[in-house]
Amino acid sequence: MSTDHDRLVELRRELHRHPEPAWTEFWTTARVVEELRRVGVDDYHVGREALADARLSVPDDEELETWRERAREAGADPDLLEEMAGGWTGCVAVVEAGEGPTVGLRVDIDGLPREEAAGDDHHPAREGFRSETGAMHACGHDAHATIGIGVLEAIGETDFSGTLKVFFQPAEEVIGGGRPMAESGHLDDVDYLYAAHVGLDYPTGEVVAGLEGILAVTQFYATFEGEPGHAGARPEEGRNAVQAMATAVGGLYGIPRHSDGASRVNAGRVGGGTATNIIPEEAFVHGEVRGETTEIRDHTFERARDVLEGAARTHGCSVDLEVQGEAPSAASDEELVEVVHGVAADHAEVTRATRRGELGGSEDATFLMQRVQDNGGLAAYVGVGTDHPGGHHTATFDVDEASIGIGVDVLTEAIAETAERY
Amino acid sequence: MSTDHDRLVELRRELHRHPEPAWTEFWTTARVVEELRRVGVDDYHVGREALADARLSVPDDEELETWRERAREAGADPDLLEEMAGGWTGCVAVVEAGEGPTVGLRVDIDGLPREEAAGDDHHPAREGFRSETGAMHACGHDAHATIGIGVLEAIGETDFSGTLKVFFQPAEEVIGGGRPMAESGHLDDVDYLYAAHVGLDYPTGEVVAGLEGILAVTQFYATFEGEPGHAGARPEEGRNAVQAMATAVGGLYGIPRHSDGASRVNAGRVGGGTATNIIPEEAFVHGEVRGETTEIRDHTFERARDVLEGAARTHGCSVDLEVQGEAPSAASDEELVEVVHGVAADHAEVTRATRRGELGGSEDATFLMQRVQDNGGLAAYVGVGTDHPGGHHTATFDVDEASIGIGVDVLTEAIAETAERY
Amino acid sequence: MSTDHDRLVELRRELHRHPEPAWTEFWTTARVVEELRRVGVDDYHVGREALADARLSVPDDEELETWRERAREAGADPDLLEEMAGGWTGCVAVVEAGEGPTVGLRVDIDGLPREEAAGDDHHPAREGFRSETGAMHACGHDAHATIGIGVLEAIGETDFSGTLKVFFQPAEEVIGGGRPMAESGHLDDVDYLYAAHVGLDYPTGEVVAGLEGILAVTQFYATFEGEPGHAGARPEEGRNAVQAMATAVGGLYGIPRHSDGASRVNAGRVGGGTATNIIPEEAFVHGEVRGETTEIRDHTFERARDVLEGAARTHGCSVDLEVQGEAPSAASDEELVEVVHGVAADHAEVTRATRRGELGGSEDATFLMQRVQDNGGLAAYVGVGTDHPGGHHTATFDVDEASIGIGVDVLTEAIAETAERY
Amino acid sequence: MSTDHDRLVELRRELHRHPEPAWTEFWTTARVVEELRRVGVDDYHVGREALADARLSVPDDEELETWRERAREAGADPDLLEEMAGGWTGCVAVVEAGEGPTVGLRVDIDGLPREEAAGDDHHPAREGFRSETGAMHACGHDAHATIGIGVLEAIGETDFSGTLKVFFQPAEEVIGGGRPMAESGHLDDVDYLYAAHVGLDYPTGEVVAGLEGILAVTQFYATFEGEPGHAGARPEEGRNAVQAMATAVGGLYGIPRHSDGASRVNAGRVGGGTATNIIPEEAFVHGEVRGETTEIRDHTFERARDVLEGAARTHGCSVDLEVQGEAPSAASDEELVEVVHGVAADHAEVTRATRRGELGGSEDATFLMQRVQDNGGLAAYVGVGTDHPGGHHTATFDVDEASIGIGVDVLTEAIAETAERY
Repeated sequence: MSTDHDRLVELRRELHRHPEPAWTEFWTTARVVEELRRVGVDDYHVGREALADARLSVPDDEELETWRERAREAGADPDLLEEMAGGWTGCVAVVEAGEGPTVGLRVDIDGLPREEAAGDDHHPAREGFRSETGAMHACGHDAHATIGIGVLEAIGETDFSGTLKVFFQPAEEVIGGGRPMAESGHLDDVDYLYAAHVGLDYPTGEVVAGLEGILAVTQFYATFEGEPGHAGARPEEGRNAVQAMATAVGGLYGIPRHSDGASRVNAGRVGGGTATNIIPEEAFVHGEVRGETTEIRDHTFERARDVLEGAARTHGCSVDLEVQGEAPSAASDEELVEVVHGVAADHAEVTRATRRGELGGSEDATFLMQRVQDNGGLAAYVGVGTDHPGGHHTATFDVDEASIGIGVDVLTEAIAETAERY
Repeated sequence: MSTDHDRLVELRRELHRHPEPAWTEFWTTARVVEELRRVGVDDYHVGREALADARLSVPDDEELETWRERAREAGADPDLLEEMAGGWTGCVAVVEAGEGPTVGLRVDIDGLPREEAAGDDHHPAREGFRSETGAMHACGHDAHATIGIGVLEAIGETDFSGTLKVFFQPAEEVIGGGRPMAESGHLDDVDYLYAAHVGLDYPTGEVVAGLEGILAVTQFYATFEGEPGHAGARPEEGRNAVQAMATAVGGLYGIPRHSDGASRVNAGRVGGGTATNIIPEEAFVHGEVRGETTEIRDHTFERARDVLEGAARTHGCSVDLEVQGEAPSAASDEELVEVVHGVAADHAEVTRATRRGELGGSEDATFLMQRVQDNGGLAAYVGVGTDHPGGHHTATFDVDEASIGIGVDVLTEAIAETAERY
Repeated sequence: MSTDHDRLVELRRELHRHPEPAWTEFWTTARVVEELRRVGVDDYHVGREALADARLSVPDDEELETWRERAREAGADPDLLEEMAGGWTGCVAVVEAGEGPTVGLRVDIDGLPREEAAGDDHHPAREGFRSETGAMHACGHDAHATIGIGVLEAIGETDFSGTLKVFFQPAEEVIGGGRPMAESGHLDDVDYLYAAHVGLDYPTGEVVAGLEGILAVTQFYATFEGEPGHAGARPEEGRNAVQAMATAVGGLYGIPRHSDGASRVNAGRVGGGTATNIIPEEAFVHGEVRGETTEIRDHTFERARDVLEGAARTHGCSVDLEVQGEAPSAASDEELVEVVHGVAADHAEVTRATRRGELGGSEDATFLMQRVQDNGGLAAYVGVGTDHPGGHHTATFDVDEASIGIGVDVLTEAIAETAERY
Repeated sequence: MSTDHDRLVELRRELHRHPEPAWTEFWTTARVVEELRRVGVDDYHVGREALADARLSVPDDEELETWRERAREAGADPDLLEEMAGGWTGCVAVVEAGEGPTVGLRVDIDGLPREEAAGDDHHPAREGFRSETGAMHACGHDAHATIGIGVLEAIGETDFSGTLKVFFQPAEEVIGGGRPMAESGHLDDVDYLYAAHVGLDYPTGEVVAGLEGILAVTQFYATFEGEPGHAGARPEEGRNAVQAMATAVGGLYGIPRHSDGASRVNAGRVGGGTATNIIPEEAFVHGEVRGETTEIRDHTFERARDVLEGAARTHGCSVDLEVQGEAPSAASDEELVEVVHGVAADHAEVTRATRRGELGGSEDATFLMQRVQDNGGLAAYVGVGTDHPGGHHTATFDVDEASIGIGVDVLTEAIAETAERY
């Protein structure tokens, strides 16, 4: 295949230098659109045209404007920036190539709000493409966006017949962008959908045709409100929000296991109170529940709601519960797994083609997969191995750039073959 | 004073042989009435005529009938037993002795549901008047009833002018008899009220004119109901009543202290569940709250209610909360304390007359005291010291019979002087 | 096949009339031995000769002697009763039938400590073989023991060549008998082992060749000991065992899920304290943990140990933790599953032969299975369907006697074929 | 009395403009020393000469240096600043005035780390002496320090004979300065000690000769440390510090009441964890316990220690417990109360002289009072009423400057009379 891998590596490095967290992918989206124009894709939909009104965990206006301004300074197209005001980022690219089914590819594009490693043993630092924004592409979405462009470019070199849609999805890290894109309408005619992720402890050269064990997840933020009181002089006047929170933590972890499959609960971040001598008036739990199926997740979340409200009641407090992100579970369809596996097994640089493997986490591509499957289509979540020195989400995460080409090749071939076969 | 102390000792021993727990004082009440007739008191009111309809912790019919039958076999007056059907025990005796105020004396008459010691080192066992009923007078109420009779007998030998009412109150041990007697109407014309208790770690020869620190109390029984489930096969189907109970226990002890005075909480007896492999469907807390004032007790109980309901909600259970006994706090009035202190200080066998001392517990005489005080009258709670080998409520508790005479003398004199002075 | 099914039904009914709980199977063992003699098996090992010194949950001497005396009165062989003194019940029967492998069959023989239904709609009551001991065969072990005898009788009519051992295991219901029998030495030369259970919601006519999902389990009894105190007068003197228990309950249910598979925790029965006004001095948790693998169970139990000790420490109490029963997980080997499935599929009365099915609980046959598998042998746990009106362990449980013959036939054939095939 | 009250008001306002939090009273101490020199007191001891090596809650070096630099810029004496390096603030002033006892006066000098109100309805803002440091004198210590200077100035105008020591104590707000000053040696020859506080809801014109109800207090910071784990992929690997903290919160509030008097517990500020999908590795409780007596406080703190260690153990974590501040309880001696009451009753501007009143909080002057009382001396804690628009520690707290003169007068007179009378 003749796609210019060097160009793709350069693009990936440019994206890596400009990571933007969830819903602030202003520069990134603009850069993606620039590439679309370059490769001749002129049917694309940005922001409000790519997303339904169902975004979660959108930052406040000040935060959004700070990043939009930064994108402007970094040279992003002012018209696009105008269009994306308010955090309407991401885009959908469409290529019509004759008769045939509609095949989709979903890639995510957001970075993480964390510092990147600066030492010489960190490849991006050494090679001069370390993050310049304070955020970091610590989960490989720079590679994902690049692969999306690569596939759009390469598809023309195959005998693909049909329609290809590439979904450049924002806000995956807060599991906030999947649902609005799934409900945008652009998925409604998609017959086959691929989603892809690099790394996940699979080495360069391995391709997993269908990643499993994607847990449904709901992230929530619960705020307890009570009444303050002087802890020495008037303890009885307080309604203790920290007590309520502590009772809730105990109750959350005590939600029963589910016999239909795995469930998870975590009160990952908590806090409350202001000073040793004040009965705490406010406290919070920032937590999540997961389930091997969406039903298990829902069951567990219903229990969590009971716990939070009961714990508040126990200590005379009120509680406000906000869902901040969610994604269902989803499974890869056997037919597409077979396609990817076959393609991968034939690829020269693929040293190990696996049918099934574990993801062991959550991901909101499931919203898009579910949409397609609900409409009678098929979907698969493909793992593209890449050697990564640091773990996902850590300061030393990096992608082996050799895997980008593999990802482009395998996905392009799989898309072409899918259109042909079905 | 010429009261026949030997007769009183005999009476006390007879009562000691026939202890009856709360609301089953059938034989005891009948025996008291027999004594009233003997000493010439013919104005007395038994059961429904002595109590308002506010009894708490009445046993079930089977239990009541078992004890009533036992009383019949022990020779109690069948007409009185008929009158007392349903656990309407206790009586009020009235002596009108000319012009003057109405002075009351409250004594309690119930035993405790516990085995009595049988060893030779236990005086009642050695002397042959150990309990024959399976229950036990382990708190000296046999002495209290005897003192009540003694005072009725002795008052005639004083120059008392006025009306004397002696309240033989049932069901003190479950703090269930005070309120119905207080609301019976018989207290409404009482100007001055004395209540008395023997022992309480004060030795024979000591008299405490006004016992303080009587905590208001509410005893409750909370039953949690959830749903069962097989712990191995279907844990998610259960709504775990034991979890709810455990959360409630944590919450109850976590009710804040009160800056207006002492409070207490205790989950004294708890339980739940049936087998290791069943998610528990039922659980209970049998507990109590106390307060230095009735307001503190009420505040604490309101918090307990929140806790119980909140804990149930937390684990998807329901809770049923029943108040099983209660008594307010009450304080002894200085005027009566002075009267008792003066009388006691002059008594030959009183080696130590104290104005104030601590009770350190709860007691439902407070309902009667409060009633009198609310009507503008005065009240005092008198401690009559008695050496007791075992602690109150233990199997080896016993009363030094020498203290019975002291109690009769001091209270009779105090009643007479009260009528004279005020 | 010509085994006399009527005889077996009679035997089952006789066993049903004499249920004996764990470690008191005196009459039952003696009756089994009587049958062994009848069918000509003279190589058998009773009690201490059938069990290693690893029994759990043995009742106290008084309880044991009560049941042994009852067995004597019911006509059990006095010599055998002597041999079984101290609760050494159960037996192993051995039949040598020429060259060939050693094949084992494990059946359990104990009843449950519960009342049996007495109504006419309960078959054993209507037909006059309702329990006469106060205990109940509410889980079909009467049928299991009968099947064991039936197989010993029927094996001679097949062309079985090898050694057959039937393990009549006591004390399964407390998961206390599996390990001592597994470690007795009698398993050490067993090449293939079958265990069987009737019912489990599989109807008459269905045979499940390999039951799965047998969770490893540990049952424990934790006793918290603190110090008492008067809840009103001296709350600070108490060390509150109920608080410790409640904290432990919270902590136990809060033990984290395990990513390697299912885990379970239950505090199935708890209690503590004596009276509302006493700070509770004692409390207990009777609970269990389970795991899809023995490792998960062990991990979870280690966490439970931390919780129990930590909770005691939190409230100044001590805790005593006793393991009362345990069983590992185990899986059925594919080879034996195939044998059973083939035999069952060919049986005229088997309407549905299934390869794999769920048990969804725990069972200590796993100790024996594991022993054989650890020695390089194979094992399978076979489900023999039976219609049962009431659920397992309920008062109206009963076995469809038609399933006994099916069980005997299928297991006998499977044993014979196993010896032939391997 | 002729002390120049206007000068004192000016001094108070100057101090109000320069509030410095605990252990950073560099400018304040230097300003006090300047005043000492002005009024002719040349026997004074600063920093290390005024404090034993027992300081608690000293800020880190960076914080200390920031404030010291700020003091330098504000014109503080460089030699004194040098002496106070490391947060050795505060001073003791000594005036020898002939034969007689040694009488002490303790005033505190630190501000609070909070913003001051800026509105025109806030007197210091309106009059131009609002805080310039970011901290705030929100508890009247500016008035206290001023009163200390005023008394030193005024004492010469009385017939006082003896030695006067004024203790300008740092770090009262973190209850960290009392103990080091008490153990400095300067208290060892003090026969009579007064401490004073303005406000506390007593209005201008009221003087309370002996404030009671000063609860002993211990402030602590407990850090739980566990192990992280991915909440979705590997929950069993975590040792959950937030669970430990939550269990600790439950346990802390569940510490039993004490029958000897009031106790208090508060987990005033808590927190833990980093993200919803990580099992929390760290958590903390910043809390306090109090007692009506030091013994009750100690008993309660011992229980708290059990709770914290037990909670850590329950969840497989470790805990580090640091005491950050503490003060004993203390009572005012009747003799000194009489002196103050007499003096106050005679003062023209005192409209209400009270013998006893409630403080209802904690305060580390008790360390100094206890030191004197342990040596056989007498001590009293005097309340000087002042109208204050906002509550103590709030942004709108202010002192009615008329009360400064009253404080100076009453304390000076009381000191003089104490020396004379005893």
